[in-house]
Amino acid sequence: MGIFSKDIKSMDDLLRHGLQDVYYAEQQVLKALPTLIDKATARELTAAFKGHLGETEQQVARLEQAFDLLNEKPKGTACPAIDGIIREARDVAGDIADKYVLDAALIAAAQAVVHYQITRYGSLAAWAEELGQDAVATLLESTLKEEEKADRQLSALAKRKVNARAAR
Amino acid sequence: MGIFSKDIKSMDDLLRHGLQDVYYAEQQVLKALPTLIDKATARELTAAFKGHLGETEQQVARLEQAFDLLNEKPKGTACPAIDGIIREARDVAGDIADKYVLDAALIAAAQAVVHYQITRYGSLAAWAEELGQDAVATLLESTLKEEEKADRQLSALAKRKVNARAAR
Repeated sequence: MGIFSKDIKSMDDLLRHGLQDVYYAEQQVLKALPTLIDKATARELTAAFKGHLGETEQQVARLEQAFDLLNEKPKGTACPAIDGIIREARDVAGDIADKYVLDAALIAAAQAVVHYQITRYGSLAAWAEELGQDAVATLLESTLKEEEKADRQLSALAKRKVNARAAR
Repeated sequence: MGIFSKDIKSMDDLLRHGLQDVYYAEQQVLKALPTLIDKATARELTAAFKGHLGETEQQVARLEQAFDLLNEKPKGTACPAIDGIIREARDVAGDIADKYVLDAALIAAAQAVVHYQITRYGSLAAWAEELGQDAVATLLESTLKEEEKADRQLSALAKRKVNARAAR
């Protein structure tokens, strides 16, 4: 939640600041995905990352709708968690020479990003619902379901193809 | 994966360095949990965090068994991801005055930690299995299941009790 968390006095504040946290996180994901796309070797993995880039753009748009519903201007707040997760993803992308081992590492790095989103959107959707902000909750749940699906797809791709090639 | 990832040449290296990453992460969780226990108000939340402290100690022991099976001395490697996630948890724990809103934020912070472990243990278990390290995979899957259960319990507690009190 970062530097604004001292301003949190109510659950409504918690929701608003949480939205700012994921809004910042999504921007960082948008910046990082082209590197993952560029570094991936398996065709399905490149395709999965490209698909996730399109989804992330939609997720940003949904967050902007949520801010709008709360009469708030979309803005981000510093989020050390996603910064750390993405820093690890970039480290891995830069450092592994074997392209099949790199693919396995890229999937794991991407799943760490996806799980951060799953946990944050899960909390935010529950808070929005509790506050009677049903339209906001519905937007957040759409993104949550997309992220859960992305996680399953990446796991399946790892187990079906990428890990076997990396272990050879 | 941090500073050692340039040494990753094979999937076996990926597994070993991934184990060092979660070994470091578990140590940080052990250091952070007493703060969460101290700050929580709802009795069930304190109990859940205390239970997770005990589980974390067992998870560290399982990792030490996994290192042993791989003929490696247990050691950690810098993990900016867990550092960022825990920094956010500490920020929130220090800054929210309303104890019920704080409880809701603490659950979300703890679930971010749990989801980081779910994603890492999931990847590590799949890699160990692919490499034929079945005993290591079994240890990692035990921890994975514990973390998935912890996540479900925290979600249930949030929805059943903590969020409603925070929203009042």
